[in-house]
Amino acid sequence: MKPPSLLGLLRFLLVISFFPPSTRAQVPTQPWEEVVNGVWRYVPVKKEKINLLDAAGSTPNLPRLREFTQVPFPLDQTQIRITKQNGKLYLRFPLGPEEQLYGLGLHFKQVNRRGRIYNLHVDHYGGQDNGRTHAPVPFYVSSRGYGVLINSARYLTVYAGTANRVDSHNPPKVYNRNTDKQWEAQPTSDAVEILVPAEEAEVLVFAGKSPLEVVQKYNLYNGGGYLPPKWGLGFTYRTHTQFSADDVLREVQAFEEQGFPLDFMGLEPGWMSRSYPCSYEWDPQRFPQPAEFVQTLLAKNVRTNLWINPYIAPQTTLYEPMRALAGSHTVWNGLVPDYTLPQAQKVFTDFYQKNHLDMGVSGLKIDENDGYDQWLWPDVATFPSGTEAELLRQTYGLLLQDMIARQYRQANRRTFGLVRASNAGASHLPFVLYNDYYKHEDFITALINSGFVGVLWTPEVRNSASGEEWLRRMQSVCFSPLAMINAWSSGTKPWSYPEVYESVKKVALLRMRLLPYIYSTFAQYHFEGTPPIRPMPLVEGFVDQPTETEGTLDDTNNPYKLATRQDIKDQYLFGESILVAPVFTGQTSRRVILPKGKWYDFYTGKLVGENEVITVEAKLDEIPLFVKDGGLIPMIPPRLHAPKMGEKLPLEVRHYGTAEGRFLLYDDDGETFDFEKGDYSWTELSTRKTPRGPLRGTSRRISGKIYGYSTLDWKFMTP
Amino acid sequence: MKPPSLLGLLRFLLVISFFPPSTRAQVPTQPWEEVVNGVWRYVPVKKEKINLLDAAGSTPNLPRLREFTQVPFPLDQTQIRITKQNGKLYLRFPLGPEEQLYGLGLHFKQVNRRGRIYNLHVDHYGGQDNGRTHAPVPFYVSSRGYGVLINSARYLTVYAGTANRVDSHNPPKVYNRNTDKQWEAQPTSDAVEILVPAEEAEVLVFAGKSPLEVVQKYNLYNGGGYLPPKWGLGFTYRTHTQFSADDVLREVQAFEEQGFPLDFMGLEPGWMSRSYPCSYEWDPQRFPQPAEFVQTLLAKNVRTNLWINPYIAPQTTLYEPMRALAGSHTVWNGLVPDYTLPQAQKVFTDFYQKNHLDMGVSGLKIDENDGYDQWLWPDVATFPSGTEAELLRQTYGLLLQDMIARQYRQANRRTFGLVRASNAGASHLPFVLYNDYYKHEDFITALINSGFVGVLWTPEVRNSASGEEWLRRMQSVCFSPLAMINAWSSGTKPWSYPEVYESVKKVALLRMRLLPYIYSTFAQYHFEGTPPIRPMPLVEGFVDQPTETEGTLDDTNNPYKLATRQDIKDQYLFGESILVAPVFTGQTSRRVILPKGKWYDFYTGKLVGENEVITVEAKLDEIPLFVKDGGLIPMIPPRLHAPKMGEKLPLEVRHYGTAEGRFLLYDDDGETFDFEKGDYSWTELSTRKTPRGPLRGTSRRISGKIYGYSTLDWKFMTP
Repeated sequence: MKPPSLLGLLRFLLVISFFPPSTRAQVPTQPWEEVVNGVWRYVPVKKEKINLLDAAGSTPNLPRLREFTQVPFPLDQTQIRITKQNGKLYLRFPLGPEEQLYGLGLHFKQVNRRGRIYNLHVDHYGGQDNGRTHAPVPFYVSSRGYGVLINSARYLTVYAGTANRVDSHNPPKVYNRNTDKQWEAQPTSDAVEILVPAEEAEVLVFAGKSPLEVVQKYNLYNGGGYLPPKWGLGFTYRTHTQFSADDVLREVQAFEEQGFPLDFMGLEPGWMSRSYPCSYEWDPQRFPQPAEFVQTLLAKNVRTNLWINPYIAPQTTLYEPMRALAGSHTVWNGLVPDYTLPQAQKVFTDFYQKNHLDMGVSGLKIDENDGYDQWLWPDVATFPSGTEAELLRQTYGLLLQDMIARQYRQANRRTFGLVRASNAGASHLPFVLYNDYYKHEDFITALINSGFVGVLWTPEVRNSASGEEWLRRMQSVCFSPLAMINAWSSGTKPWSYPEVYESVKKVALLRMRLLPYIYSTFAQYHFEGTPPIRPMPLVEGFVDQPTETEGTLDDTNNPYKLATRQDIKDQYLFGESILVAPVFTGQTSRRVILPKGKWYDFYTGKLVGENEVITVEAKLDEIPLFVKDGGLIPMIPPRLHAPKMGEKLPLEVRHYGTAEGRFLLYDDDGETFDFEKGDYSWTELSTRKTPRGPLRGTSRRISGKIYGYSTLDWKFMTP
Repeated sequence: MKPPSLLGLLRFLLVISFFPPSTRAQVPTQPWEEVVNGVWRYVPVKKEKINLLDAAGSTPNLPRLREFTQVPFPLDQTQIRITKQNGKLYLRFPLGPEEQLYGLGLHFKQVNRRGRIYNLHVDHYGGQDNGRTHAPVPFYVSSRGYGVLINSARYLTVYAGTANRVDSHNPPKVYNRNTDKQWEAQPTSDAVEILVPAEEAEVLVFAGKSPLEVVQKYNLYNGGGYLPPKWGLGFTYRTHTQFSADDVLREVQAFEEQGFPLDFMGLEPGWMSRSYPCSYEWDPQRFPQPAEFVQTLLAKNVRTNLWINPYIAPQTTLYEPMRALAGSHTVWNGLVPDYTLPQAQKVFTDFYQKNHLDMGVSGLKIDENDGYDQWLWPDVATFPSGTEAELLRQTYGLLLQDMIARQYRQANRRTFGLVRASNAGASHLPFVLYNDYYKHEDFITALINSGFVGVLWTPEVRNSASGEEWLRRMQSVCFSPLAMINAWSSGTKPWSYPEVYESVKKVALLRMRLLPYIYSTFAQYHFEGTPPIRPMPLVEGFVDQPTETEGTLDDTNNPYKLATRQDIKDQYLFGESILVAPVFTGQTSRRVILPKGKWYDFYTGKLVGENEVITVEAKLDEIPLFVKDGGLIPMIPPRLHAPKMGEKLPLEVRHYGTAEGRFLLYDDDGETFDFEKGDYSWTELSTRKTPRGPLRGTSRRISGKIYGYSTLDWKFMTP
């Protein structure tokens, strides 16, 4: 990293001091400082004290970032405008006519962001992609291989290619709606414009050889993706809110009897003596001996995760120490701790350490830190640190995640939990997002969008109108970061729909078999920044050419005859080799877009096509999965719990297609942070063509010692 | 009006100069100045240069305001907090446990605002009552008889009784959701809190003997309601956008032949040579002789109204003079004039005067000045006056309305048109709001809400799925400020559904018969501030006691078991005596809440009940109408056009019930502003009980000369 040029800074300060505000767009010649290879910061404006990346506690992985091939600054600097006016920042970045935009947070309806406006605001997703969502990350990726991050915890408005300036260099053609059929409801815009309602914000530009590399750099800049413990990638069940310790134990027993995988159990509000607002104390009736309860579960290889929300009840020991450290307003009558204060964090973590973490609790589900507005503190609330309510709203999920993450790291235990609010900088944090929205199709779109912005999302399963729906939801959640049933309200069990139970069990066990593949995928996320869920625009060789359907004039629903754009929002890569094409209730077949190269059916190894759109039958008991030519899939035998520390298992490596393949298999102890000190291994699995024979598989340890497999079998799926 | 105390002001300035910002909440002892009887202004904060009331050009009717009985300041001043922090204003007003709140703009789903949050933002209504709407008026009325107006053109956030402070004097009881059935998803709040994202805003408090009086004062403070020309209260039809002059003339002819009322014809974008962006020039093909065309219509007693939107096409004579007076961004490739500049107003009005007004055009429909965001200028746009984009967005509709209003006033011709954006201060402006949303039920709710905030709304009719729906919509639009069919896209005619045409015609002619009643109602709006559409909470003796239905736990749609509140959002008073209960498609009967006193069927004169909820049959060819005991309804014979200047008509006055009645009948020339110089009359119509006989009607001229009736017949409807 180059040290910032003091002379340049001085020159800039002189420039802005002598020119009136309206000419301040004239920035000095070198306003963009390369922070690290491929990441630039705009020097003239500084970050605010409270900002997203600092709230997330992220530290860039500089060594890895320095390894990428160098690339030039990706945009025409003369076309970037960053100005201060009226106490706000106005940003403008150029946008080419064919460019597509992705990112800008966890949205549920669309993937392509071009031509839309987002008011980025942490909130429960309300059914419209307007910027109010659980992770309204102010980072966008362009199909042209660059990204822009506004590290600001303000409510930003992003005009993602919607507006045009009078002085535009390439203004859209002007048509006459009265007579011209070509008249466009939305003339093509040549810029992304952003309003930051504050005078400060860190502005970062990322560049890479491809959109995927840009996302990798974004994740690495935020510390690399989180590597969950192995048990975090197994199966998770959240019990009914009123369950007692005995009820939970009976449930664990039932999973065992049913032969259904289970790695951690989530307890919902009823584990507490009081909730909404929360006591954080075990309910003496329902959980009379909590330590024993947690240990009993652990002995059965099942972890305990606890639901909380952040609002502190008057009747708890936490209340008095937190009172002076909390905001002016209550939420559900509870205190809102000001977690920008280290002291407030200490009050909570000391309590949590003693009553939960030391007892063996594996993590938290941190609820209701997102919205809706009517439940949370109002923007008029004030906080003892002086942090504005808006800034706290945008960072609260990050602050909570980082606080708990640091605590588990200190204990050298990896955690993996759930949270409902996140934001930029979260890549390295051990939490998966979820919500109450529950539209299956839209849950998959959210899953896809999570891949652009360094967050994890689970399309959790709660209940279903039919066995078919239950199965379809279970199939897709097993190909997500967190395979979970959340039965807090419904009490539904995996076997509640007997007519599909065998298929449900089959896909859950398939997830367990894929753990070596999934764990290596997350290791890639950590070490390389590669997102475990890859949207199609991040797939190599895939070109997103959105198609549009002409609008039909409707004076109520479409008075401007706006065209509809078709998004690819129902398929994605899970890891580097498996293309997932979820099926939704009622579908008997579905279209799948195959990127460049040959693709093979995961189950049969048969060729299905290449670089084309195919239609596949939606078999009831299989989620359509495709593997790319030369894809290697390491698997273990079916099991009910993720491998324990030190456990050695037989490994089967499947090879698909006819091309040579390579896969880097990762392993470590699966539970601690010792991997950060080097206690892990990378093993190269590869299949090579023999001079005149078939493909042959070989494995080669690249680095490290820990390698948890006893035997290795190669299975060539394609004859 | 008392002159402001200079000494007090000086003392205040000393106080705020010597105290650091954090203690500025300690305001001087008399921060509330009584601007005029019953209206107070908060002295310590000032209005911004660009604000709503100034943009609307409203001038308080001080003489009338001084006539009200004096009332004390309505709130406990020690419970009001107005503080400046972080460049923003934080306002807090106390709220009693039983108080209900109304107003805050033209919303479509609910009437009662308590317990909800509004981000007041001019926009096309998007299906949710969240503050984004055509007239997001920052004025609320309390059931306790006071109102609060924030005269600020910022995007305000209003927490209308949603939040609670830790230091609240009467905090809600804390329940435990795990065990207490009384647990509330939304604890009762004791305040309205408002965030103004600027350091300045005019804060006004209104008090009156009743909520109605508060609304009257609000309207009078804004100059009193607009008195439309008589023809504006007749029937209006907007032709298909591609119609030529000949097509329009044929349409006028068809109305005549059908015997269907018609007072003004609206031309849609096709009258222009170019639209979207607009040329404002008559299309030489479709309208080769516009002056002649307008005069031909006028000779048939039909006025011409022209559609425009504000965005100026490059290919017009207006473009060059407006270029330096317009904003940085285009809308539909057109310039956005900065109408905070008098020079920009002059450029437009000079052009309009010459090409339209002098030609006889009666007014405008000013479209697309509201939203959605994706069509309008972004908040990063800048304007030559230095006005921020946000301020212009909140005031654009007002500026346009006021500009046109002043121009017609100068010509001494009353206009009456349509607009899609408005805001506080609009009471005196000659425009009616409309939109593309088109849900009949919600249109009625909007109509009701318009009555709280000094705007007019038309539940316009465009097309229908059935004859029944057509009739139901036509019935309700005839009991609104503007009886209009808007066929710009559908081309639907009043007689397009032959099976209901007789009933459609019947209700349109009933509207024409009621013109004396309606005109007097608008005169009351003008002189007394009384809204023509009166929501039930403004009806004397009506107590709004909202009922709630317990929520059902649903982990997707209602995870907090929020109770549902029943609003009265489908009935209203039209004028002082007629209770309107619109019927919606599919209804065979409906509930009607009758306020205190006896109520009579409008059609038969029969008693229907008093102070109770009744169920009435939904007859297909009648919209249920009820008249209060002693109600007098002045009517004229059925006709196709509103009375012309100087025309004298026979008057029939209907009396309902058994009580004595009184009605003030207003008249003037119906077209000019001469009434402002006193050229009008008020006539007292009254029915008195004779010593031992029936009721007897008398009329008595109270003031003025103009009285457009030839004969007077009394009709006692109730035997």
